[in-house]
Amino acid sequence: MNHTASTHVAGFAHGGSADAASSDPAALGWMAGSPPPASAQVRWDDGSMWRFPQWRWGFSNMRMLVPTAGIPRAGAISPLPLALRDDLDDVVLTTLDGAAMTWRESLAATYTDAILVLHHGTVVHERWFGVTRPDTQHILFSVTKSLVGLLAEMLIETGQLQEHALAAQIVPELAGSGLGNATLRQILDMRTGLAFSEDYVAGHTGLTDVQRMSLAGGWMPRHADHDGPDGHFAFVASLGQTAAHGGDFVYRTPNTSALQWLVERASGQPLAALIRDHFWQPMGMECDAAIAVDRLGTAFGGGGLMASLRDIARLGEMLRLGGRWHGAQIVPEAVVARLFRGGDPAAFAHVAYPGNPDGSYASQWWHRAGGQAMALGVHGQGIYIDRAAGVVIARLGSHPVASNRGNMGVTIPAYDALVAALGR
Amino acid sequence: MNHTASTHVAGFAHGGSADAASSDPAALGWMAGSPPPASAQVRWDDGSMWRFPQWRWGFSNMRMLVPTAGIPRAGAISPLPLALRDDLDDVVLTTLDGAAMTWRESLAATYTDAILVLHHGTVVHERWFGVTRPDTQHILFSVTKSLVGLLAEMLIETGQLQEHALAAQIVPELAGSGLGNATLRQILDMRTGLAFSEDYVAGHTGLTDVQRMSLAGGWMPRHADHDGPDGHFAFVASLGQTAAHGGDFVYRTPNTSALQWLVERASGQPLAALIRDHFWQPMGMECDAAIAVDRLGTAFGGGGLMASLRDIARLGEMLRLGGRWHGAQIVPEAVVARLFRGGDPAAFAHVAYPGNPDGSYASQWWHRAGGQAMALGVHGQGIYIDRAAGVVIARLGSHPVASNRGNMGVTIPAYDALVAALGR
Repeated sequence: MNHTASTHVAGFAHGGSADAASSDPAALGWMAGSPPPASAQVRWDDGSMWRFPQWRWGFSNMRMLVPTAGIPRAGAISPLPLALRDDLDDVVLTTLDGAAMTWRESLAATYTDAILVLHHGTVVHERWFGVTRPDTQHILFSVTKSLVGLLAEMLIETGQLQEHALAAQIVPELAGSGLGNATLRQILDMRTGLAFSEDYVAGHTGLTDVQRMSLAGGWMPRHADHDGPDGHFAFVASLGQTAAHGGDFVYRTPNTSALQWLVERASGQPLAALIRDHFWQPMGMECDAAIAVDRLGTAFGGGGLMASLRDIARLGEMLRLGGRWHGAQIVPEAVVARLFRGGDPAAFAHVAYPGNPDGSYASQWWHRAGGQAMALGVHGQGIYIDRAAGVVIARLGSHPVASNRGNMGVTIPAYDALVAALGR
Repeated sequence: MNHTASTHVAGFAHGGSADAASSDPAALGWMAGSPPPASAQVRWDDGSMWRFPQWRWGFSNMRMLVPTAGIPRAGAISPLPLALRDDLDDVVLTTLDGAAMTWRESLAATYTDAILVLHHGTVVHERWFGVTRPDTQHILFSVTKSLVGLLAEMLIETGQLQEHALAAQIVPELAGSGLGNATLRQILDMRTGLAFSEDYVAGHTGLTDVQRMSLAGGWMPRHADHDGPDGHFAFVASLGQTAAHGGDFVYRTPNTSALQWLVERASGQPLAALIRDHFWQPMGMECDAAIAVDRLGTAFGGGGLMASLRDIARLGEMLRLGGRWHGAQIVPEAVVARLFRGGDPAAFAHVAYPGNPDGSYASQWWHRAGGQAMALGVHGQGIYIDRAAGVVIARLGSHPVASNRGNMGVTIPAYDALVAALGR
């Protein structure tokens, strides 16, 4: 996928990215009309779905662009009590760049599509922008990884997976590949020497690794002479090793494809069914979810989940409550405890994420030194859990910059200011 | 789409189609494994989704193969009372070929994926086969047309569309095309001289019209040198005229694309939103539905709807009840009355459908001389409504022969025998 913030739309300002108001997908009329005119189309087959500002429409409608497996809800919807506060829009924060802005302004500054704040289980704040609605199945990108991580930890807890097993012992197809001799724990914590560069900005010559992954997974159309790997599992099996495993944390999405492969092989179930059976149906989710699949029907565990804002808020709240949700133990307490312990800050220090000094990464979750856990996806997707403050924040976004480095200088101070205001 | 009943699977018997048991998609293990081996794959990009017996898996999982728009349910699920009868499996019928078989045997003989019988609003019979489950979003093919027909009749009833208007008066893009000078009513009743052949069997030279439609709509991958129309609306606008409009009924799918275009233009809403707002949400459907979309996001009104068996049974029951469903008037009574009046049998006689002498076609619904209305989709999809008997039958199938000529010699006598048994 070409994640460059290119601005190819006729009449659309060039030179840097438009702000949230002038890139509002509803105002720009993407895909409006029967049929939409060429200038308003957001497509898979010409790559326009991977251009800004087109993706401000596309991230809320991604199932119209790529095939998906369904993750159906079932039964009664679990309640999310509502007691909206009117004082939060004006909470003032200071970004890491030293700019003062209100919470409301921070949402625009980070191209937020929707955001929801739970305080001790009650929705105190909820905002919707652009084309994103309560039943929108918004792409979550790498928030998906955090569910794969939970499922892996749950299988370790039940003894169906062993954390020190080598990947190739569980999935023989990984033997000889870069991850074949990595342990499940090293893969879970992204402390492997896998040969893959997580660079979202397209180069001028050749394909990036991220684009090669997208070709394998069907998120970019293939040319007739395509001879790359077919599918997410084949893609990770095709990668080599550039460093010893067990070193520093380095974020590389195909680690999660390998992790998903181990989870599917150990459980005998595809990822969509696992998410349905372990989360969507027992938790009484409000909306069906979906997950992008490659041409072999394999879900993209590295970033393909599409779900509603309120449902990812439920996931965060369930974890805040120690894995319990309306009387059921969804995730074992030991797994939740591990999640909130985080990983090794020494292995994380070199990445220097804005807003997260002394943080860590473990089990496919991000961790702050203050004890908060985060599921993060490119372009501003997130579940933020601050147990000490009793706060869960779910957010959906379509930021022009893929990496969360593009927004965390605003979002993290904004979360801290909001938590402080809620505690007053 | 290549609808030929080819049998290219290694180890799968050649020469004619396997019977239901030996083509059972669960037993054959299609798409099983992480990832499925090449011999078990059902794919969009190699056309295998359009081969039998692969489509016995594919028709229950079509959203994993092509992009779709969501049609979300909402609110409380409307009840379908259950009082199963144990005497229906053994009901005996005589097929039009003179063979005696039981109802149970007729389901296998027609490659049924699932079937449900309502008698005066109560589920008296329900059967599931292969990989089809109560929450499966099974492709409905041309049953989709019958919903587009209902929406068009509803817009005529409210005055938003005029039945004698010419298509090009409503959608100027159709001017000069084969349907530009056809009336809405002629299109609704498929009594146009559109240049299109509804032939589902692939020829040995060149593409069939159905394949060209599939290329336009994205159900077949395009070669790099593809220069055909892009999308369902462009496809119908590209077709010419071979005969005067207003003659005999001739079944041609692109008529429905034109009809959908008029409906979308008049309502200002895309088809998925219309089905959501007029049927799925007010009727309290049990499962989300989905509809296949082309590369421009246009739904395939000619055959792209995917829904659960019980939800299409609800549609049939709502129409049996005069358009009312749990206190709400979903479809105006006048529209329902028109539906059950049917069309002109003289315009229909030449097609000689098995099991339907003296029948007719109107408003995108099929009609039997006995007053029954039918929504029919290739490979055995259907909603059958017999108001006199108080019976509604919903069925899903994956018959090796696309045309319902392949199964109606069994299904129609089977329905008649079942209705007689229920009345006893």
